[in-house]
Order: sequence, then C-alpha cells, then structure tokens
Amino acid sequence: MPTPLNGIRVVDLTRILSGPFCTMLLGDMGADVVKVEAPGEGDPIRHAGAAVEGLSWYFAAFNRNKRSVVLDLRAPEGREVLAGLLGQADVLVENFRPGVLAEMGFDDARLQALNPRLVVASINGYGASGPYADRPAFDFVIQAMSGFMSVNGKPDDAPLRSGLPITDLVAGLYAAFGIVNALHARHHTGRGQRVEAAMMNGIMSMFAYLASDYLATGVSPVRCGNDHPITAPYGLFHTADGVIAVAPSTEAILRRFLRELALEHVLEDTRFQTNNLRMRNRADLDALINAQLQSDGQENWVRRLNKAGVPCGLVQDIGQALSDPQVLHQEMVVEMEHPGHGPVRMLGFPVKLSDTPCQLRYPAPPHGAHTQQVLQDWNIAAATLQTTSVTTE
Amino acid sequence: MPTPLNGIRVVDLTRILSGPFCTMLLGDMGADVVKVEAPGEGDPIRHAGAAVEGLSWYFAAFNRNKRSVVLDLRAPEGREVLAGLLGQADVLVENFRPGVLAEMGFDDARLQALNPRLVVASINGYGASGPYADRPAFDFVIQAMSGFMSVNGKPDDAPLRSGLPITDLVAGLYAAFGIVNALHARHHTGRGQRVEAAMMNGIMSMFAYLASDYLATGVSPVRCGNDHPITAPYGLFHTADGVIAVAPSTEAILRRFLRELALEHVLEDTRFQTNNLRMRNRADLDALINAQLQSDGQENWVRRLNKAGVPCGLVQDIGQALSDPQVLHQEMVVEMEHPGHGPVRMLGFPVKLSDTPCQLRYPAPPHGAHTQQVLQDWNIAAATLQTTSVTTE
Repeated sequence: MPTPLNGIRVVDLTRILSGPFCTMLLGDMGADVVKVEAPGEGDPIRHAGAAVEGLSWYFAAFNRNKRSVVLDLRAPEGREVLAGLLGQADVLVENFRPGVLAEMGFDDARLQALNPRLVVASINGYGASGPYADRPAFDFVIQAMSGFMSVNGKPDDAPLRSGLPITDLVAGLYAAFGIVNALHARHHTGRGQRVEAAMMNGIMSMFAYLASDYLATGVSPVRCGNDHPITAPYGLFHTADGVIAVAPSTEAILRRFLRELALEHVLEDTRFQTNNLRMRNRADLDALINAQLQSDGQENWVRRLNKAGVPCGLVQDIGQALSDPQVLHQEMVVEMEHPGHGPVRMLGFPVKLSDTPCQLRYPAPPHGAHTQQVLQDWNIAAATLQTTSVTTE
Repeated sequence: MPTPLNGIRVVDLTRILSGPFCTMLLGDMGADVVKVEAPGEGDPIRHAGAAVEGLSWYFAAFNRNKRSVVLDLRAPEGREVLAGLLGQADVLVENFRPGVLAEMGFDDARLQALNPRLVVASINGYGASGPYADRPAFDFVIQAMSGFMSVNGKPDDAPLRSGLPITDLVAGLYAAFGIVNALHARHHTGRGQRVEAAMMNGIMSMFAYLASDYLATGVSPVRCGNDHPITAPYGLFHTADGVIAVAPSTEAILRRFLRELALEHVLEDTRFQTNNLRMRNRADLDALINAQLQSDGQENWVRRLNKAGVPCGLVQDIGQALSDPQVLHQEMVVEMEHPGHGPVRMLGFPVKLSDTPCQLRYPAPPHGAHTQQVLQDWNIAAATLQTTSVTTE
C-alpha cells in the first residue's frame, strides 16, 4: 500500500520527546526515518518510563517506524558517515540547542554543498535567534514563560502546569507540518530550505481568543478553573453517581439542555434570562441543574444529553479513555510485536487518510541495529564504511 | 516570493475555531482559501471575543489570508455553486458533524465524480465512525473524555480543564498536517482522498509517557499539580521578588543548579542523594532552595541560571508573554491594516521556513466580500453565477 511520504529519507538526530515525536509522525506517513544515536546509551528515553521485559514502552511508542544507526559524531569518521547520509537524504531533523549543529561542522554552507535539496528542520525552545536563543529549554519552563500556566488552574491558586508536556508535542507536530510543506515547496523550487519550530512559538499559537482578547484590550486573561470565562452554565455537574462534563456552547444548545432537565422555565427567571445574568448567578443555576441531575446516573445522562444534541461526557482517567469503546473503534490503541520483548501496545494514528493510511511498518529499533543495513541501502561508500567500526547492542 | 502551497485551492466550509485554524495554517502557507459562509450572520466568531472598531480581533486572527464567499447551502443554487467550486478545488475542509455533508448532497460518490483529485478533510469530535460518531463535540467535553483533565490539576482538587481550548487547536493542526500529506501523496497517486482529524484522537496522541506508562503497567497516572511525577526538585521556586520556574531535567543540570545556589553539598545529604530520596524529601529540599533564592530577584536568577545551563524562566501572564523581547524578535505578534478597522495585531507564524516563509497576504474578509471575485477567478460558469443573487454586507 502506498504512503504519503514513500521514498522520503529522513536523518533524525533528535532525542527525548519533541524531535522523536516529529520523526514518528513522518515515519507513520511512510518516510524512511534513520535515527542516528550516539554510541553507548543512545537516546535517553530508551531507559525512561515504564519498561516491560526490559523495553521502555515510552521509547517503543515514539520510535516506531524508525531504524537505528549508531555514529560517534564527536569523531571525524562518524561525521563523515553523517555527511554521506545527508547527501542522500531529503530531510534532516535536529533538536540541539541553536548553533550546535554548526559546531559539529554542519553549518548552512556545508549542508547546502552536501545536498541543496535537503530540508533542514530544527526544533528548539525559543527560536534560533533573539535574546533567549541560547537558553536551555524544557517543557515546564516554556509553559511558564509562554503564558500557558497563567491561564491554567483555579483563580485563587498558583499558576499550574499542564498535565501533559504539551509544548514538546505541539512543537514536534509543527515541525512535521513545516517539513511536509517544505517538501511540497521543493516540487516547485527544486531546493530544500530551513524549517524551524520553537516550543514557545508553537504553544503561543494555540492561545486563540485568549491572545486576541489581550491584543484587543490590553487586559490579560486570568485563571478561571473549570468555569468558562464567558459562558454559563458550563463545567462539571453532579449526577446520582458521579460527575459529568457539560458544555452548552450556544443559546440553542442551552435550551435543549434545560429542556432535558425539565428546567426550561428557568430561562424566564430574572436571574437567568441572559448569559451575563447567568454568569453573575452561576452558583444558583448550577445548584438547580445539579438537583435535577440527581434523578439518574452519569452513563444515562451522558447518553440522554448527547442524544438531545448537548455536548456532554464523563471525566475519564487515562486508563478509562484508552479502554473507551470509541477510542478502540478509532484504533487509537495499536499493538505490535517487538522481537525479544513480546507485543507492545501504543497509541495509534491521530490523522486518518483513507487511501494512503499511516502504517505500523516496524517496531522501535534496538540501539544501532540497522547501521550496516542503512549504509548499504543508502549507498554510503564502502571506504567510509570501513573506517567506521560500529558496534550494536 | 513563492509559498509552499502556492496554487492550492481550498474550499473552507468550517466555522468557529478548529476548522478555521486549520485553513488559516494552509492560508499562511500560501493556499488560496475560500471561506464559504451562510447568508446572514456567517461564521459566529465574527461576533465573538473582544472587538475594536466593530471588528472581532479573534475573527481577524483566525481568518487572515482567506476570502469570503456567501452561499446558501440550503438552496439548490448555492449547492450548485459549491459543486462548481469543488470541481476547481484541491482541498475541501469541513467541520460538520459526520454525515451532514452527505445530507447536503455531497457524499463520497458525488465528490469523487465532481473532482477525483479533491482532498476532503473533516475535523470532528470523536471520529466519523464508532459509537460516539454522532455525538456533538466541544473542547471542554473532549478534555474530560480524553483523560486530559484527569492529569491536569492538583492531587486533592477536581480534574481541571486546560486554560486553552487545546483540543480544538491540536485537531486543526493535525488536519492541516494530514492535508499537506495527502497533497504530497497526490503527486504519486494522481488522486485525492479523505483526511480525518478528530479532537479526541488528536489530544490523546499527545499523552506521551502518560499513555505508554498506563499501557505498560495498567495504572493510570494521577494529577500532581506543579510537581513533576518522577523528578525532584522541579517546579516553582521563590526568589526575593517573585516566583521562577526551574526544571533541572537531568542529574548534570541539577548539579549545575545547586552549584549556582551554593548548595552542591546537599547531594551528599542522606535525604537527597538520589532522585527517589529527593522525591520523598521534596519539601525539605525545596525549602533549602527557596532560602538561597532569597538573595536575588527573579530577573537576575533567570539570567544566571540559564547562563549556567539550567532551564529556568518567569511565570508570565499572556500580556507579558506577548510583550516579551524574545517573542517580539520571533515576530510572534504581527500587525496588519484592516480597511475600515485600522491596524489589527495578531499572533505570528509558529513555523518558520527560510526560503518560502509564511506571509500575511490579506486581512480577514468582510462577510461575502469576494463572492463575485472568487467565482470569476475560479471560472464558475456564468449561467451559475446568474442564478445566484449574492449579497455582501
């Protein structure tokens, strides 16, 4: 079956999370991803997270559809092989601090000389230029600096980080988007180019109305917990046996919600006639809603309200979400045999393409397992091969 | 200057946030995006968020680089014009509930007959098939159902929504990524295909180690506020004049952090010798760190610690972040003249391409401003034009 990025060769110098996520997305779309790792330990994620039969499932998930080549980039021979790979590649992805790749001998001029069709993608914290370009970056700090934490949490509490390392993942996805756009541009220009995705820029691009409202008014949005800043009712409500999340996002949906609760008359109550009034008397209206919800359990309310066209759901933990029949139907949990480690379960593909779907082609590679194979596949000169005595685990 | 998606024609049937964000990303990359709006009000976001001189800056930000065409898709004439547009287009993007497009007369067979090269992208809540396919979706409910809220917040508090409508934006970005991949595939196959991005699938793909740890162990991760689940010290610390965020993500960085605080000796303390011990005695170590940080202010600590290679930053609100010199240097705030409404400021481009950069080509369109122009540009037959008496605001 064909894949969108069939034939696209990616040299992946990234480690940890955002870079490997980017190249996983490319690999899922069919690119030939060669993960270059240092001798010794390799990507530190090989030893992070929960392991089963000696294999990190975190590493397994984010490095599927890749082959591993071990190169010592501190040694001239390793760099020579890298130059050979780059000469054959379509894409280079790196998440070093800005400047490190050039220090290794691969500045723009060298890369251009090696391969003018190469797309060179960098993922970093704050961007490769500007006053913070040299700062080390980490998801938690970017969440703080970007403003994300300032709007996450309850009004009277401290700013709160997201439970997910969201700035890493968003940056990785943006990098993948930029890379495929650069490959598209190459159809017209015949040339590669630089692509850059910074964690800070990526998460800030997701501020939506929070950013536009600040820019329009000069007033920064504040934390408001689970209460929507401009809509009521909205939030978590209490049924006979647990909480449900309800978001009546328009006046029409609100009317359906209240009708289902036999509360439609409250819209004639002078406390609740407009959204502004409902915001002011939110607690009173929530109490009326919670009282009516006591007549049934959460599963039934979720079914009834959704059927009535009211967005509504359970508050699931990660295990419940990953066992949810809809999530399983969408194949968001997939399983692959890892030789020597048994079957590994991992997240599936978030984008579905009907004719050239993402595919699980091979499991995450043992450290250096494909060094010889890749150099042969990619026609790296035998002379170079001989100077590189590579070891595999 | 060329753009990556130069010449790509996008028919955009989306409204509100996730769909318009997707098509904004495509427009920023140079696609010709035609926003099809209903007569009357058009996209509800035209009247949402803070307005300046009668213009919603929220609408302005998410609809830049688009032209607006008004069509009544409930009338046969409107659908006829839409068929004409789809015959000329490369991409259709819609965020109706699954099935609505087919009910309008544009099922897969019709779309295929109109234009076999058309990429048809859908953004929805739970995916177009499966037990919840028909449920209405809304960011807050997807945050609840997906497990996001279960890991966001403090251990003793209720599950908490993200301050950003993150599931909308992630789905929009995934859709854009899928579309560009489908355009890439079309170079090989000569054919379009369906692309689908569901909000639920998108946000779950960002669970990283939280998902892999659950799948490996069967134990769902829990909320842990600002404390990293497996690393200490880590979090918000108190300087003489305010809080800083510090994330010493490796043993080497922790050593640098403690050295800078003249606290390196604490690693010999039996309470703090290993990460496990530091997790157990987190409060004691945090107190020592906070005491040392009292000797200087937050700005100086951020400068000193970053210089020492320790990821560190301020907790900025959205206004501070959007005024940050690094953010301005990265051109993450851009301004464009909107005729009749003066200059509008909005977020810049999160992905930087060196040779074919994203461009602000035109401001968000008045409702229906380009109906005649687009139909002429796209060569929709004059006969059709005559049957469509379109009005512009």
